[in-house]
Amino acid sequence: MEANSKKICILDSTLRDGAQGEGISFSVQDKIHIVQALDSLGIDLIEAGNPGSNPKDLEFFQLAQNLQLNYSQIAAFGSTRRKDLKAGEDAQLQSLLSANTKHVVIFGKSWDFQVTEILHATLEENLAMIEETISFLKNSDRVVHYDAEHFFDGWFANKDYCLKTLQAAVDGGAASLTLCDTKGGTMPLELFEVTKEVTEYFNKYCADKKIEPVLIGIHTHNDTGLAVANSILAVQAGATMVQGVLLGFGERTGNANLSTIIADLQLKNGIKCVPDEMMCQLTSVVRRIAEIANVNLDSGMPYVGTNAFAHKAGMHIDAVTKNPTAYEHVAPESVGNDRVFLMSEVAGRSLIIEKIKKFDDSITKASPVVAEIVAKVKEMEHAGYKFEGADGSFELLVRKIIGKYQPFFKLHYYKTMGEKPSASPDASQFAQLKVEVDNQIEITAGEGSGPVNALDTALRKALVRFYPEVSSIRLTDYKVRVLDSTSATASRVRVLIESTDGVEDWTTVGVSNDIVEASWIALVDSIEYKLIKDLEKKYKKFL
Amino acid sequence: MEANSKKICILDSTLRDGAQGEGISFSVQDKIHIVQALDSLGIDLIEAGNPGSNPKDLEFFQLAQNLQLNYSQIAAFGSTRRKDLKAGEDAQLQSLLSANTKHVVIFGKSWDFQVTEILHATLEENLAMIEETISFLKNSDRVVHYDAEHFFDGWFANKDYCLKTLQAAVDGGAASLTLCDTKGGTMPLELFEVTKEVTEYFNKYCADKKIEPVLIGIHTHNDTGLAVANSILAVQAGATMVQGVLLGFGERTGNANLSTIIADLQLKNGIKCVPDEMMCQLTSVVRRIAEIANVNLDSGMPYVGTNAFAHKAGMHIDAVTKNPTAYEHVAPESVGNDRVFLMSEVAGRSLIIEKIKKFDDSITKASPVVAEIVAKVKEMEHAGYKFEGADGSFELLVRKIIGKYQPFFKLHYYKTMGEKPSASPDASQFAQLKVEVDNQIEITAGEGSGPVNALDTALRKALVRFYPEVSSIRLTDYKVRVLDSTSATASRVRVLIESTDGVEDWTTVGVSNDIVEASWIALVDSIEYKLIKDLEKKYKKFL
Repeated sequence: MEANSKKICILDSTLRDGAQGEGISFSVQDKIHIVQALDSLGIDLIEAGNPGSNPKDLEFFQLAQNLQLNYSQIAAFGSTRRKDLKAGEDAQLQSLLSANTKHVVIFGKSWDFQVTEILHATLEENLAMIEETISFLKNSDRVVHYDAEHFFDGWFANKDYCLKTLQAAVDGGAASLTLCDTKGGTMPLELFEVTKEVTEYFNKYCADKKIEPVLIGIHTHNDTGLAVANSILAVQAGATMVQGVLLGFGERTGNANLSTIIADLQLKNGIKCVPDEMMCQLTSVVRRIAEIANVNLDSGMPYVGTNAFAHKAGMHIDAVTKNPTAYEHVAPESVGNDRVFLMSEVAGRSLIIEKIKKFDDSITKASPVVAEIVAKVKEMEHAGYKFEGADGSFELLVRKIIGKYQPFFKLHYYKTMGEKPSASPDASQFAQLKVEVDNQIEITAGEGSGPVNALDTALRKALVRFYPEVSSIRLTDYKVRVLDSTSATASRVRVLIESTDGVEDWTTVGVSNDIVEASWIALVDSIEYKLIKDLEKKYKKFL
Repeated sequence: MEANSKKICILDSTLRDGAQGEGISFSVQDKIHIVQALDSLGIDLIEAGNPGSNPKDLEFFQLAQNLQLNYSQIAAFGSTRRKDLKAGEDAQLQSLLSANTKHVVIFGKSWDFQVTEILHATLEENLAMIEETISFLKNSDRVVHYDAEHFFDGWFANKDYCLKTLQAAVDGGAASLTLCDTKGGTMPLELFEVTKEVTEYFNKYCADKKIEPVLIGIHTHNDTGLAVANSILAVQAGATMVQGVLLGFGERTGNANLSTIIADLQLKNGIKCVPDEMMCQLTSVVRRIAEIANVNLDSGMPYVGTNAFAHKAGMHIDAVTKNPTAYEHVAPESVGNDRVFLMSEVAGRSLIIEKIKKFDDSITKASPVVAEIVAKVKEMEHAGYKFEGADGSFELLVRKIIGKYQPFFKLHYYKTMGEKPSASPDASQFAQLKVEVDNQIEITAGEGSGPVNALDTALRKALVRFYPEVSSIRLTDYKVRVLDSTSATASRVRVLIESTDGVEDWTTVGVSNDIVEASWIALVDSIEYKLIKDLEKKYKKFL
């Protein structure tokens, strides 16, 4: 890490540009929760939407005024005034003011082609629109940030004009100028050179005019897989503001992933983005926002993904534990993530001990039970189990071997039935089962779209009477993998179920030639894991 | 695009480094299919695994010798010899030779820390291991590529020694030296400078020694979100080989995404990676490999994702269509992808015509039935179907629309039943069904390990009386993909079935919320496809 005391400004656009992503849509409450999450990470500016665009955004800005934030400031987003109106007469600018935010972001055109062909304005008209919009807002006591849309395309098409649009923004009183790679097609070295030239140009321009230097910002898209790199290179070229989306989602291939950029800059280049003590919140804030946005977080996302610090090959594990810097570019704790050892065919003894230690630290390499656990894991892996990613089932397996397990119920039988055509309009599969808890019998039935869905419904119904907490379990993911798939429909299948109770997530696994039975095994593990964890929490109070 | 006639060598490691990704595991047949897919894209080198590591890889290399490839060459992968053995006595190197590939990739240590702490060898011993391993393989008539593991860490720790390891490789006769950013933590400008220095150093070194210049390769990981950018910067610094994984999967955060890199270099920097005429295969090859690997392709993946060229509703379609360069950094056709307007998920018309032509060349773009087929495909894709890897079902679908189809049987009903514990020792699932062929009724039953297996057994039993050729169908693969998996056990599933009659292979697809019904649809398609093909062959004799 280089010594560098530079602090740059981070603008998160999850609520504005990120919301352009397919399938992303936020309620007003979602937006409030995301603002709070970003605040807890120490993000400087939160671009929260366009108050003129819809009533939901307007409602959000009204609520946001009463939010107690420790760190972040909220910015409203809008565009330059219409070409045929004075700024003060433009309804869009009026509603921007009505958002009552100290910061306002204005986007405008910097590419001559877009001015004439899309906006149907003259080049001079566009300059006036930029300058007058910004000075109008500045005179209304706002800190105004200017986003130069299609900046890099504009630069290569007509550099002189492109610079003039930025000058207009500075002359209007902009606090920052952000260079947008709107199509995401600019290559890194070009972007570096251009950003450097712009930064130097405006340092001189502001000095000559004897005004405060403007911040130069960068806003990239990932169409060429370069959004993160381009943001970092821009900062190295002199940019002092980075715009992006914390999880990287957005239109097309997404926006620049701020979680990666923040960690890269702060941990690897010594450039401060968020307060040092908040850096370890990175993983949990990202995962909280993934929950709110209802997106599956890519397990391979740098720094924050569940696999970001996962080690697989067996030979490495001893070495990793002894010398983490030999295999990890940063410590997982620095971003609040965990080192994970994935169980796999090559899993060694030390890996298994590492995992056992998480819930029973009395077991060491020398404990005789370890050999038994290793043998059992190997046997089950041979049968098609995979405990990488299935910590819930792994813990239950170890508990069964070391004697820290009691079944929560006994299954007498289940039966599933399916038919086509179906007698029921909403279901084609049916399940019936009989379970016993403390000598009490419960017989229930359920229906569903598939046999597993029907069985899941019937099982929960049977157990909720004895264990009300079962109702807090939500299955969040269900995956089926056909093993030795060349045996076709007689193949063995592995089912992975991911569950949550809103606080903790866990994953369980089942294997069988019968997909229904494989799912049943994973389902039972999921429920028992939850019940054990709840008991553990209650019991700890007595220790 | 710059004019630039440079051609660089692409090495794909989907089958080796990519296979380290969580949840990735390939059968021998999967590996063969992936090699064929990469060959059709014009990839230079395919790193296919370590023949000494397990019997599956050995079997693959035996089969691979008989593969007819148009473009790609296969490389086996291994490490430097053990420190206490001569190269000729090392079993690992012997099994590398037994793979019978012209190209061999050898990885070795370049970081002094790893040599002494992990390998427990002296720095001198390591140099000898590198040089002797390579010269041994070269004397066995192999083209040897050297991967310098942890190269960048080694460089910053002990640059002199790091260079000596590369010299040892060149002295041993290596054809290429690949600089590996094994931990994925190197920042772009540093990586650019180091690669430039190494390239210049070895250009001079080879010239001084009057030997062929070695290729300098780059191998990056995505731990800091920079794998693509670092690969491109390395090429701009002089590297002439890029290693990666076509879809970017791999350990932790994944390997460098070759599909993005190839498109960036070739379309945006004028540096040739694959034959120009194969570039438009990029999207379909990536999607085929995703199917084989059973991974969900990120819809936002640059160039090849389904959203890579998606425009949101509200965007003026006319403007995009008239002036695509205003909104797209490259043309979607250039990589075989489609522009998508998200309000109306338009499936690629030209792709569909391409497919129809394969079995009915009377249909052209102008045929009125094409619109109907496009509409139907669109509707089914919306429901979760995917015809890219399911030509059998696609042909049946088109036949149904153009009137070249007659059902071979009528289903009155099927019923499936499952139970635990089971009354039958070998089966836990049972099926019963009633079908009708030419006014004759057949009622049969079957049992099996899962509901689909039971149904498959019962259906074949019912049909074989009318169509004896049904007995020649063997199901060779069965894959299940849970769509919208966040609905957990109520999710929609897509089932792919691959079948063979020993002469031809075909794949069919079914989608439903009920896995049994989805499998049924694919099963019926598989049988009907076979029956149609047989009739076609018989009938052709009369033409």
